[in-house]
Amino acid sequence: MKLTKEQEQNIKEQQSQNFKTKRVTSPELEKILYEAIPILDHGFIRVVDYMGDDTSIVQAARVSYGKGTKKVSTDSGLIKYLMRHWHSTPFEMCEIKYHVKLPIFIARQWIRHRTANVNEYSARYSILDKEFYLPTNDHLAAQSQNNRQGRGDVLKGDQAKKVLDLLKHDAENSYKNYEEMLNERYDGSIIDEKKIGLARELARMNLTLNTYTQWYWKTDLLNLMNFLRLRADDHAQYEIRAYADAMLDTLKKWVPITYEAFMDYRVGGIEVSAKGKSIIQKLIKGEKISIEDSNLSKREWNELMIAFELKDKVI
Amino acid sequence: MKLTKEQEQNIKEQQSQNFKTKRVTSPELEKILYEAIPILDHGFIRVVDYMGDDTSIVQAARVSYGKGTKKVSTDSGLIKYLMRHWHSTPFEMCEIKYHVKLPIFIARQWIRHRTANVNEYSARYSILDKEFYLPTNDHLAAQSQNNRQGRGDVLKGDQAKKVLDLLKHDAENSYKNYEEMLNERYDGSIIDEKKIGLARELARMNLTLNTYTQWYWKTDLLNLMNFLRLRADDHAQYEIRAYADAMLDTLKKWVPITYEAFMDYRVGGIEVSAKGKSIIQKLIKGEKISIEDSNLSKREWNELMIAFELKDKVI
Amino acid sequence: MKLTKEQEQNIKEQQSQNFKTKRVTSPELEKILYEAIPILDHGFIRVVDYMGDDTSIVQAARVSYGKGTKKVSTDSGLIKYLMRHWHSTPFEMCEIKYHVKLPIFIARQWIRHRTANVNEYSARYSILDKEFYLPTNDHLAAQSQNNRQGRGDVLKGDQAKKVLDLLKHDAENSYKNYEEMLNERYDGSIIDEKKIGLARELARMNLTLNTYTQWYWKTDLLNLMNFLRLRADDHAQYEIRAYADAMLDTLKKWVPITYEAFMDYRVGGIEVSAKGKSIIQKLIKGEKISIEDSNLSKREWNELMIAFELKDKVI
Amino acid sequence: MKLTKEQEQNIKEQQSQNFKTKRVTSPELEKILYEAIPILDHGFIRVVDYMGDDTSIVQAARVSYGKGTKKVSTDSGLIKYLMRHWHSTPFEMCEIKYHVKLPIFIARQWIRHRTANVNEYSARYSILDKEFYLPTNDHLAAQSQNNRQGRGDVLKGDQAKKVLDLLKHDAENSYKNYEEMLNERYDGSIIDEKKIGLARELARMNLTLNTYTQWYWKTDLLNLMNFLRLRADDHAQYEIRAYADAMLDTLKKWVPITYEAFMDYRVGGIEVSAKGKSIIQKLIKGEKISIEDSNLSKREWNELMIAFELKDKVI
Repeated sequence: MKLTKEQEQNIKEQQSQNFKTKRVTSPELEKILYEAIPILDHGFIRVVDYMGDDTSIVQAARVSYGKGTKKVSTDSGLIKYLMRHWHSTPFEMCEIKYHVKLPIFIARQWIRHRTANVNEYSARYSILDKEFYLPTNDHLAAQSQNNRQGRGDVLKGDQAKKVLDLLKHDAENSYKNYEEMLNERYDGSIIDEKKIGLARELARMNLTLNTYTQWYWKTDLLNLMNFLRLRADDHAQYEIRAYADAMLDTLKKWVPITYEAFMDYRVGGIEVSAKGKSIIQKLIKGEKISIEDSNLSKREWNELMIAFELKDKVI
Repeated sequence: MKLTKEQEQNIKEQQSQNFKTKRVTSPELEKILYEAIPILDHGFIRVVDYMGDDTSIVQAARVSYGKGTKKVSTDSGLIKYLMRHWHSTPFEMCEIKYHVKLPIFIARQWIRHRTANVNEYSARYSILDKEFYLPTNDHLAAQSQNNRQGRGDVLKGDQAKKVLDLLKHDAENSYKNYEEMLNERYDGSIIDEKKIGLARELARMNLTLNTYTQWYWKTDLLNLMNFLRLRADDHAQYEIRAYADAMLDTLKKWVPITYEAFMDYRVGGIEVSAKGKSIIQKLIKGEKISIEDSNLSKREWNELMIAFELKDKVI
Repeated sequence: MKLTKEQEQNIKEQQSQNFKTKRVTSPELEKILYEAIPILDHGFIRVVDYMGDDTSIVQAARVSYGKGTKKVSTDSGLIKYLMRHWHSTPFEMCEIKYHVKLPIFIARQWIRHRTANVNEYSARYSILDKEFYLPTNDHLAAQSQNNRQGRGDVLKGDQAKKVLDLLKHDAENSYKNYEEMLNERYDGSIIDEKKIGLARELARMNLTLNTYTQWYWKTDLLNLMNFLRLRADDHAQYEIRAYADAMLDTLKKWVPITYEAFMDYRVGGIEVSAKGKSIIQKLIKGEKISIEDSNLSKREWNELMIAFELKDKVI
Repeated sequence: MKLTKEQEQNIKEQQSQNFKTKRVTSPELEKILYEAIPILDHGFIRVVDYMGDDTSIVQAARVSYGKGTKKVSTDSGLIKYLMRHWHSTPFEMCEIKYHVKLPIFIARQWIRHRTANVNEYSARYSILDKEFYLPTNDHLAAQSQNNRQGRGDVLKGDQAKKVLDLLKHDAENSYKNYEEMLNERYDGSIIDEKKIGLARELARMNLTLNTYTQWYWKTDLLNLMNFLRLRADDHAQYEIRAYADAMLDTLKKWVPITYEAFMDYRVGGIEVSAKGKSIIQKLIKGEKISIEDSNLSKREWNELMIAFELKDKVI
């Protein structure tokens, strides 16, 4: 990640801000506020604003339950209870805003999370930067042979080199022709003073999907956790997971108690179906059980065995 | 409005908080943060948290339009432009949280604005306070004779007294029996130690709709303005307008430039249909025009005449 | 439930409609379309429109996964897979609309599910019907002694009679005075021709919370299941559960394959935290484990023991 | 637009469906149900399902206003009234589902309308078709000189030819290398049996933004109109307007009364600010007014003059 001088200056100014407020603050998050955390080759995330902390969740829950929660001991106990029982509204009382730079094909996954506010850099108005994502060698994975949306082994040798060359060449070539059609370079200089350029809203269609874009993305804590649960998961595409993992760190700094409950109940938790539960119960009683008796499909059976690491307990 | 000692103490503590932050702050809003602003006879609103200010809108818009907005002169000019052209997403970058105490029948109108986060006091868990709304004499209006949802003249004399007596008596009586059924008074004392009380979730059904409830209500600036546009309007029921009017004041303190644009384009603005536009154009040309030629329904015609104060300009 | 003659006539007409369509239809749901299914003493639900069926979910999933899903065998297998892995968007492709009559205090719980479209009978415009909910004897429960939002034993004898008398008397009395203030009876007749009535939007505040209201409520299949998961659950208040249970039946008629997957994975399913999982694994290995070693709070421990019916397996 | 044989067969089957239903139907919309309406060079829209018609809006409004609306004469009068006064919820009672094929850079604009349900073809699972958008000559516009997001004159002669050649070449080249990296052609044939291909989720990043994708897109009537108001507008990019215009036709067939009110009040309507209103009033009184006295910015003044075609009426 290379920030422009203008961006660096901007971040420096923001970080030197020092205001007084009566609002609750999250001291650990303040420390990294505005900082650009590098992701992939040219991307970043920055926390640029937030509202509320762990105590805001507790405060909202206590308004809901009124005098009824007086006896519930600690903030931590209450937050765990809320998480365990899927109480959602208290977690909506906190809000966070990120500035994100990311490749367009990842932005297209990300935007599917609808309960968020977004302002994206518009390529109708302005020229996109000359930056595109190229995977490192260890992320240049082959298509999985048994999972339609997964990755298999990493490509090697000549094939890896060939793929990287193609990606690099096509992105650069498309960008060069983007400038050519615009009759304008990314630094704003005109290519041929005698020509007029193609409309920006049209020229952009020539760019490849690994071109970087950027946006402000704002959401509440509940929907942030919904996002992270899906996107920090093993099944998520590596490139979006890289963003989600960095955001998990910011979550930890922002609302440490909620983070802990989230890791225990959501990220580390498992869902067991009614049928699955009855199998678990039999296993605890010491019964042997086979897939034939289980009433589960093969796929479902395997998922259950993996979840509880049970391969040796079954016939 | 009478706050409990506990509430007063709580507000005092919140107001004496003094944190340092790198986040943007809104100095005028900080001055009234946590303060309970009285509404109706027992209600209030309090701003309890916020995120962003006018500059956050500008910042988001400039990310969207990129280098393209460099030339747009002032923050104020940009915010007006955004408001005029219904650009919505930059206004979503600010967030505000209110603590509101309000009668249940008003809460039922308010909750219809769905794009907001809410934590309401739960009468399943806890006993509601013994407070209910009674209109003052000047708001004790008769049903309008020509508008199915409007108010007409104020009731007077004996009839007004009778209405107030009925409202007061029925609310008090229902509350008394609510306690009776709960076998518990609002201060938590047990009425008859030998009895058990009816479940709270059931007993509450005996309360009248003017009983006060309270909630935390959080929304973004765009949806706050949508709310205020409808609820600070003349056609809104007086009781909810009382809340909306107080919230308009907090809007002014929070984001003064946005407030000004909002008052000009939304609150003071008018919408003219294609047919209405053609009538306006004829009037400007000095043509006389009658309802018969107008192609408008009588109701629509009247609305247009009132909007532009044109009664004398037409046949 | 007693329908007015007008309502009965209206339903009859709707049920005799017979149109041709190229849209997919759900034959079992068509059979009960428009039918008023009685709930509580005066309430009902009616399915009044719907869009899509089980095949619409499959169709949407197959567009998403493209040629990739060709090999996935059956519709049923695909729907189960989507449910198990929390794929949400295909379930949003179906939509259903209910007409519901329900007590106001239940409407207030219901409306908290925001992702739905609602048109409620407006007591600003019109006079509410003279109908209020009174629990039957077997639902007249005392407050639970150990659960702040639960119910305990059923009230008996004199106390039960007393409670019912109070509820009935206060609702009737409040309604009588509502008419008095309106100067108009629920059948539209004027009480005193020489008087004008209080505005409807004000008079309504005198009604008790068990008064019935009605609305059209429309949502997609995903959000319907979110609603049912919470409201058809044991922890939900009996009165809203009565509605949710009837809606479960309509779900079964509408999308039978989805219904089956929903019952197995959501309604009958359990979530196990990371800590809980490790306890389950030890139990399967035949280890004894006590609450002290479990790293769980007492409450959490109990919830796990109950979920898997394990009381005798632990120390 | 060229449909595959499979798609043609599929559409034929859907169109020959003939079910009986008690639901309301929209006869004009039924006639074109499932039909692929060509947009741009390879795109289309198809209405694939719907729920409700004009009468559903009226039905919902009458439930809201109860007996109060009995006197409101016609369905048409009521729908106009609702539209004029921005009553939103009755329009949410109708739902429509489209199948859309569109270039990715247009999909990225479209998806910003969040209140909709979407299932998009996934390039993680499957290989995208070899189809990309190329503008026709009359839409190959230059960047506007005075509007940062607008189009100016059409490019001509050699420059036009050059631009089209670049777009065509880069799209084809990127696609060819996409296949190369996948080691698989769009028809599913393997290129080199001895190699394994790059993961699909990675290879897609090499495609250009004019590549076509497709999705199911479902929304309610209110949000469809919000979409069309913005996207069928002159300020919208031509390519998305092409879709919106075709959708306006389907709106007309589906809910003809609503369509008419929408065209009059929304599409053909104008919003006038408080300041603008006072200028209009002066002009009607025959006063001359200049920009200096107007209290408007130059930009705002021009917008007002254009809206009412007033250039000659002012100083």
